[in-house]
Amino acid sequence: MNTINIGIVGLGRLGKRHALNLAQRVPGARIVAACSPVADELGWASQVLPTASTYTDYAQLLRHPDLDAVFLVTPTSLHAEQIIAALQAGKHVFCEKPLALNMADCLRVEQVAAAFPHQVATIGFVRRFDPSYRDAFDKIRAGQIGTPYLLRSQTCDQNDPSGFFVRFAETSGGIFMDCSVHDIDLARWLLGANRAKRVWATGTIAIHHGLQAHHDVDNGIAMCEFGSGQLATFFASRTQAHGHETATEVFGTTGRLAIGSNPRKNRVEISDQHGVRSECVGDFFERFSDAFLLEAQDFVNAVLQRRAPVLTLADATEATRIGLAITEAFRTKQMVTLD
Amino acid sequence: MNTINIGIVGLGRLGKRHALNLAQRVPGARIVAACSPVADELGWASQVLPTASTYTDYAQLLRHPDLDAVFLVTPTSLHAEQIIAALQAGKHVFCEKPLALNMADCLRVEQVAAAFPHQVATIGFVRRFDPSYRDAFDKIRAGQIGTPYLLRSQTCDQNDPSGFFVRFAETSGGIFMDCSVHDIDLARWLLGANRAKRVWATGTIAIHHGLQAHHDVDNGIAMCEFGSGQLATFFASRTQAHGHETATEVFGTTGRLAIGSNPRKNRVEISDQHGVRSECVGDFFERFSDAFLLEAQDFVNAVLQRRAPVLTLADATEATRIGLAITEAFRTKQMVTLD
Amino acid sequence: MNTINIGIVGLGRLGKRHALNLAQRVPGARIVAACSPVADELGWASQVLPTASTYTDYAQLLRHPDLDAVFLVTPTSLHAEQIIAALQAGKHVFCEKPLALNMADCLRVEQVAAAFPHQVATIGFVRRFDPSYRDAFDKIRAGQIGTPYLLRSQTCDQNDPSGFFVRFAETSGGIFMDCSVHDIDLARWLLGANRAKRVWATGTIAIHHGLQAHHDVDNGIAMCEFGSGQLATFFASRTQAHGHETATEVFGTTGRLAIGSNPRKNRVEISDQHGVRSECVGDFFERFSDAFLLEAQDFVNAVLQRRAPVLTLADATEATRIGLAITEAFRTKQMVTLD
Amino acid sequence: MNTINIGIVGLGRLGKRHALNLAQRVPGARIVAACSPVADELGWASQVLPTASTYTDYAQLLRHPDLDAVFLVTPTSLHAEQIIAALQAGKHVFCEKPLALNMADCLRVEQVAAAFPHQVATIGFVRRFDPSYRDAFDKIRAGQIGTPYLLRSQTCDQNDPSGFFVRFAETSGGIFMDCSVHDIDLARWLLGANRAKRVWATGTIAIHHGLQAHHDVDNGIAMCEFGSGQLATFFASRTQAHGHETATEVFGTTGRLAIGSNPRKNRVEISDQHGVRSECVGDFFERFSDAFLLEAQDFVNAVLQRRAPVLTLADATEATRIGLAITEAFRTKQMVTLD
Repeated sequence: MNTINIGIVGLGRLGKRHALNLAQRVPGARIVAACSPVADELGWASQVLPTASTYTDYAQLLRHPDLDAVFLVTPTSLHAEQIIAALQAGKHVFCEKPLALNMADCLRVEQVAAAFPHQVATIGFVRRFDPSYRDAFDKIRAGQIGTPYLLRSQTCDQNDPSGFFVRFAETSGGIFMDCSVHDIDLARWLLGANRAKRVWATGTIAIHHGLQAHHDVDNGIAMCEFGSGQLATFFASRTQAHGHETATEVFGTTGRLAIGSNPRKNRVEISDQHGVRSECVGDFFERFSDAFLLEAQDFVNAVLQRRAPVLTLADATEATRIGLAITEAFRTKQMVTLD
Repeated sequence: MNTINIGIVGLGRLGKRHALNLAQRVPGARIVAACSPVADELGWASQVLPTASTYTDYAQLLRHPDLDAVFLVTPTSLHAEQIIAALQAGKHVFCEKPLALNMADCLRVEQVAAAFPHQVATIGFVRRFDPSYRDAFDKIRAGQIGTPYLLRSQTCDQNDPSGFFVRFAETSGGIFMDCSVHDIDLARWLLGANRAKRVWATGTIAIHHGLQAHHDVDNGIAMCEFGSGQLATFFASRTQAHGHETATEVFGTTGRLAIGSNPRKNRVEISDQHGVRSECVGDFFERFSDAFLLEAQDFVNAVLQRRAPVLTLADATEATRIGLAITEAFRTKQMVTLD
Repeated sequence: MNTINIGIVGLGRLGKRHALNLAQRVPGARIVAACSPVADELGWASQVLPTASTYTDYAQLLRHPDLDAVFLVTPTSLHAEQIIAALQAGKHVFCEKPLALNMADCLRVEQVAAAFPHQVATIGFVRRFDPSYRDAFDKIRAGQIGTPYLLRSQTCDQNDPSGFFVRFAETSGGIFMDCSVHDIDLARWLLGANRAKRVWATGTIAIHHGLQAHHDVDNGIAMCEFGSGQLATFFASRTQAHGHETATEVFGTTGRLAIGSNPRKNRVEISDQHGVRSECVGDFFERFSDAFLLEAQDFVNAVLQRRAPVLTLADATEATRIGLAITEAFRTKQMVTLD
Repeated sequence: MNTINIGIVGLGRLGKRHALNLAQRVPGARIVAACSPVADELGWASQVLPTASTYTDYAQLLRHPDLDAVFLVTPTSLHAEQIIAALQAGKHVFCEKPLALNMADCLRVEQVAAAFPHQVATIGFVRRFDPSYRDAFDKIRAGQIGTPYLLRSQTCDQNDPSGFFVRFAETSGGIFMDCSVHDIDLARWLLGANRAKRVWATGTIAIHHGLQAHHDVDNGIAMCEFGSGQLATFFASRTQAHGHETATEVFGTTGRLAIGSNPRKNRVEISDQHGVRSECVGDFFERFSDAFLLEAQDFVNAVLQRRAPVLTLADATEATRIGLAITEAFRTKQMVTLD
């Protein structure tokens, strides 16, 4: 086998991105099916993905005769059921993050997956595929900053003055589950940390007061102590003026790595009445465009080479577990100790 | 009056710096007295400060007939008594930070000072005089970043492999009182925040395990909620490889200011086998050399112009109060609520 | 027609890159033929380009029944003949830069191309497709720096201590034809300049003294006055320690754009005993990897959409004309006036 | 002797700066006399320099009984006569750059100075005292970039929309004598180069067309080959939007040093709707404020320690010689060979 047949499920903005990458830029991938409940999106698929059969029903897609794998780019609330259905149908699964917003779903998925050890099942923590984060990871593993003991990581979105995202606050799981879950995964990966021990969090609404009704904030900060002794702090914001800034610092005994500090858009520097400046990337879509491609490539290669994916379901479960504890700490204003 | 006569008290490394600034570079200042228990230091004073009478006893210095003001660069444990003695002797007082390591001393000093309203009494939170921090303050006050709601600030020292500082851990008050107290003051000043409401802290020993005996760490992180709603996080470290990095970010509703992010030593950029790089300042002494001068200048001007100093004793007391609460949170591993 | 069938000619390092891009990442492109005199390279093609027939003879490749276009990644001395043969065979042509090392060849190619106005013929000045250079171009055209009047541009390679490149000095046309020809094209494009009026150049050998035998240098500087009044300076170097640095500054009446100033490899910043630093890209291959893809995409789109390519043969001819004048100025140590 | 008595001559903006530095911040210096033809400036001196006698006549100032040295901050056309008069009166001399605008004056001054070998006579090429340039010089001398072979240096002023400076164009000697003379001196100093061999120059008027009447430009570029083989290029501009940018790159066989590339005003970085940016220094006055102090300090120390100054009159003469040749190249549009 040197090609896998993939069904793309969910054709929103990110679904389209994944579909195009798989169709046009990932050697070894072929899109044979596309699923969406939205007529416009299926229309798009018909035009742009000529090799794909289209479906409005996920269960039907799973019955496509040549299907090897699914790419789930659907609402988080559907993830667990859809992953399980795919696994049971004998398919490999790539699913967007987070795995789920509760531990029961996470563990249920893990359990089912354990029954299908020859099928790849992974969650799209895309930053692990970003060349800069990967370079940092490699440097850390090579001992270039000695022993890493502290990580600071942030996911900060450019402010959307329309506050469009407020309407999703109810189902997003809150700012820590929506944004910081990426940073949580990075902390475990880059620090070589495993399980969290204690967390604390707080937050504030700087601009979008509509969030109050959803018990959410537009700026949140959290701290985490890992069982293995390392520390991490997280910062998530929806209110940056200059652009999207995903940035991480890892402190080790002989050096520090900073990833993404100035989120420059490209290699142009402007000198004008505002000083010397660089324009910034606008969103995670722009920031991680290469990583989305590399992530898809890696999933396809894992399937073709019958190897484990970079990120296991257990990784995704632990990210959810920590994210939930942080959210609890934020809402109860208490420190939360994890078992 | 267009000149004030100053007695410098304490002639360690920082005392010498203050003495030279006052003697050679601050118009309106004249050093007339110098006090130290160390013979070598008084010898230095005799050579370098020709206009100064030398003393081993602070009480005697206060009786110098022409003395207008004292500059206290002495161990923290002496601050409260020395400030009070100076005030009672009718002198203006500049004292190095922190005011004291306990609230009783702080409040006692404030009480005495209240009885001498025409004498300037201030504490040397030097960063308020650093041109970059001052520029940030001015921009914030001018509304350039909208409403500031979050500050992240760090005081990170270059690692001293000899661990020389470990021996001072017992009397320093711990890493948060020694280092973060500066960041605490910056938070209140730059955010326009007043009293803290809740704090939390933790830390880890990355290199200097001798600190364990002193219940101290070489890396500490803390969070603070202010009564007025803003948030702050603090980071203090003794283990940086690249240099001293005092850095602060202030997030506002329309922008962010970052002060000191790359602690470049000067305007030289090196491109060689290590990449493109800048060398870094080695310590706070180098980083804040201009600020120490401006601070002394401002104190002298406050006296000459009979105006209030930039930083009040109440500011210094609140910094100590928050620092103590953070230290308690760190040691008890509990959140601490301030009244 | 929504796909074009392409023959790749020349399978060295850059030829392989173009082949893979066309085969795997350029929608609308299909590699149907590959030509190389080197057996190993054709072996590579058989494995990696399964849809390609392989040829050792270019004339035979042109007779492939389904061929629409050729991609010439061959030695410069072959360019003119190969372009002409392709045009006469009714094929679209993409050819690596430079068009030729003498004016007669350039003009001959232009003349033949004029006889086949419906075939796309373009030269790969890849920087025009780099997103940063493109962004700069768009900003300039939008008037963001006012009227551009001066450009400084450099092509600086990381030093290869083995001096491997010295052996190519005889046929490269010299450092200005080999490297600066890119900067010359950028100058015309970004300044909106047309024909050069006067040039001057000099150079020095810093490391690779073997170049002396070829009347070449490893560092060259040149100046150019355009008929339309703008100025440009060029710098080419083979001896950089930190990496490949292609950088350009465009000065306008209301601002300056700098492209590529710090040739950072990625978004990682390292803080360690060397200071704060970023690692650099190693060569043009790494620096322009996105641009090579976009360039291929644009060529395919130009063919499919029956539109003119971004870069005309006349552009390529003028770059050669200026490059030759600069080379003459360098060798004669005289200013050269172009008609 | 541990103090020298100085007469400040010329009290324009820069004269005032020198006067204040000498009066308030240079140990070992005492201002005893001040000279200006402008009543307002003498009034300023009476207030701010209480120890200074005031003069409208330079010859009279030289007769001040206690005078040891003069600081000449006067129009260039007066330099030669004033230096000679001071030397003949037995005074040490510090004179602002350039020494003169013609070789005859330079050589005459050198000749007279040779007759007074025990008197310090130096010209204020202030950049040699800037800590960043000094650091670069030290690194080069220590071999950190191998053998330096090429320098690029620029003096670029922020545009003054009023074009105030155009009226000085007639006496300034032109943009190369006024601005590039600094870069010329840096080239000789940093490259360890001695005499120039060939120069070439051109320029353009981007904004201030009034300069045409004075045969001057607001943007000039020049190249210089030194007898010892190194190369230098110079760029001078009056039309920068972002601030004053004095910047220099020195290329060596194992690395490159860049000094002043981003002329950031301070350590504040702003992230807002314009991107991530730093504000810039406004003029040479702000950029070199530390250097002006260190320069004065060094002059005083040279006198007190009876040692040679950093910069000799021969250095200043060679800078004039090269500047004149560049100006000739620019005006004649010919390459100029120096003997």
